[in-house]
Amino acid sequence: MSQKTESTSHSTKGAYVTGGQEFTRDTNYIEDRITRDGAASGDGGPGWPVEPGRYRLVAARACPWANRTVIVRRLLGLEDVISLGQPGPTHDARSWTFDLDPGGADPVLGIERIQEAYFRRFPGYPRGITVPAIVDVPSGQVVTNDYAQITLDFSTEWAGYHRPGAPDLYPEHLREEIDAVNRRVFTEVNNGVYRCGFAGSQAAYDSAFDRLWTALDWLEERLTGQRYLVGDTITEADVRLFTTLVRFDAVYHGHFKCNRQKLSEMPMLWAYARDLFQTPGFGDTIDFVQIKQHYYLVHEDINPAGIVPRGPEPGEWLTAHNREALGGRPFGDGTAPGPVRAGEEVAAGHAAA
Amino acid sequence: MSQKTESTSHSTKGAYVTGGQEFTRDTNYIEDRITRDGAASGDGGPGWPVEPGRYRLVAARACPWANRTVIVRRLLGLEDVISLGQPGPTHDARSWTFDLDPGGADPVLGIERIQEAYFRRFPGYPRGITVPAIVDVPSGQVVTNDYAQITLDFSTEWAGYHRPGAPDLYPEHLREEIDAVNRRVFTEVNNGVYRCGFAGSQAAYDSAFDRLWTALDWLEERLTGQRYLVGDTITEADVRLFTTLVRFDAVYHGHFKCNRQKLSEMPMLWAYARDLFQTPGFGDTIDFVQIKQHYYLVHEDINPAGIVPRGPEPGEWLTAHNREALGGRPFGDGTAPGPVRAGEEVAAGHAAA
Repeated sequence: MSQKTESTSHSTKGAYVTGGQEFTRDTNYIEDRITRDGAASGDGGPGWPVEPGRYRLVAARACPWANRTVIVRRLLGLEDVISLGQPGPTHDARSWTFDLDPGGADPVLGIERIQEAYFRRFPGYPRGITVPAIVDVPSGQVVTNDYAQITLDFSTEWAGYHRPGAPDLYPEHLREEIDAVNRRVFTEVNNGVYRCGFAGSQAAYDSAFDRLWTALDWLEERLTGQRYLVGDTITEADVRLFTTLVRFDAVYHGHFKCNRQKLSEMPMLWAYARDLFQTPGFGDTIDFVQIKQHYYLVHEDINPAGIVPRGPEPGEWLTAHNREALGGRPFGDGTAPGPVRAGEEVAAGHAAA
Repeated sequence: MSQKTESTSHSTKGAYVTGGQEFTRDTNYIEDRITRDGAASGDGGPGWPVEPGRYRLVAARACPWANRTVIVRRLLGLEDVISLGQPGPTHDARSWTFDLDPGGADPVLGIERIQEAYFRRFPGYPRGITVPAIVDVPSGQVVTNDYAQITLDFSTEWAGYHRPGAPDLYPEHLREEIDAVNRRVFTEVNNGVYRCGFAGSQAAYDSAFDRLWTALDWLEERLTGQRYLVGDTITEADVRLFTTLVRFDAVYHGHFKCNRQKLSEMPMLWAYARDLFQTPGFGDTIDFVQIKQHYYLVHEDINPAGIVPRGPEPGEWLTAHNREALGGRPFGDGTAPGPVRAGEEVAAGHAAA
């Protein structure tokens, strides 16, 4: 997102902390949307119609914001409709790169860095070169990097292409509540961990720490009597919280100093997170090796030696959670997604198993 | 200890990691001893006879090596015989300083930095300016900074001045076993955490991590069936392990990346550590605020922004440990020490309570 402050940005590598300052996230994105009717966006730009095979989702496994889109695409069964490009866990001063692909280039877009797709859309694009980004394959241009809208549009605008049995992750009668939970989770948790980690003063950190733990205590309480965040099925709200929780003990607890407790010491949140992890579509998108490499190698100003910690053991994610006792129907009237698409599996040795 | 590599050294502030290299501790100290007969040391230097009121122990609360001497002095009741000077938690490029004392000078020695006492003994002393150090008050000269010998001499050479009921921390019939345990604990645990934290390459860190956890697994196993490390009473071996364990979750787990687990996730070691913490003479010497300030502020090259984490909550140190069920007699035929000496108490808000 924003330059200079964000793990998903192309920002000057290693300069994430601004001395004396609180971390502030730049939330300006390319806000075009892909829609059923393909109408032009409000600013008179081109329209982007829903069209199978036309778009490529570029989403690094390491990035929590990108992770959301990978989970939702899989839960809804959009794999055949929207292809997936995966940059490696680290990025240089210019861009995330396709360094894990053969020849160091994305096999569909033919580019080495996602920056090229941003520049094709807007030459000299000055903002953060971020993931997730959706690229229009014929033109090679980025359509949008507005991650908050991308997953909602997967649920709504792309509904005609969902798999049979796809869950409704954004049910109309719950949208108000989902949106409210998402707002608090975004400012206090998703972004709250970055506010701790990139604090430029002790006062900024102390304040960020209190905000984060106030929110985590609220979630611990909320999840004591109910299996999911909103309603009795998995929704968009769970996806958004999950991608932060799954990185908590591996990264945020130590690297970002979010260390009042480990997630594994918050009984309800920890059981809730394991429940989701063990649900098809969640844990099978998680690459702990890439996650740790990303944060510990990219943020040179908070980890100058670039050592990637060995702990903790990810195997604990697979232990029993006993959340079924709370009831709930993970996929509502739908069904779980099938196995991970060939070629999209997390590498052996990088997963929790 | 050694320059450039050690938290207790006067070393160039902020340069603890040497790129590409394993951390190696300089173990050369001023090895004079204070003895009952006051005989000269082997190298023909002056002799230092045991003499009440003559010597001052300089020991920062933050430092684990200094912490040993404070614990043993208190367990043996040597407070009236050997006075205590306490530098603050941080130090500059030259030396630990008496910045917490009125006027910024030690009230007995009248110096602002312990370096001055080293220079009075050896002008231009080129090695690490470390704590603990014992200073001869009349001459203002450092006698010894050989921390491993200092506590043993407290137990043996100073025996004539122990309080009534002082425990035998180094019983003759167990010395061989204590020495063997101490050797392994020193190289693998006391120093092992530093080897992780100051590793200059991923390979050095990975190797250090494996060594540390192999040793911690050994200790977890050893302490399953017995309350203390050697014999059925507290000995020097427990003191030496304790000062590392008490810093583990507050510092080593995150700051030094010793994060396979928290200490609190190792059931036997955690209960053992709490048992000692709750024993008079151990926990009442622990200042968690100074401990965290020391590591997070001094090691600028692994924590450049100088943010001191807020977690974890130290109150857990006071929870029930249930180790009494294993038997053991903490002080053997002796008794627990009385309250902490006036003026030597840990500041309110800095302790676990």
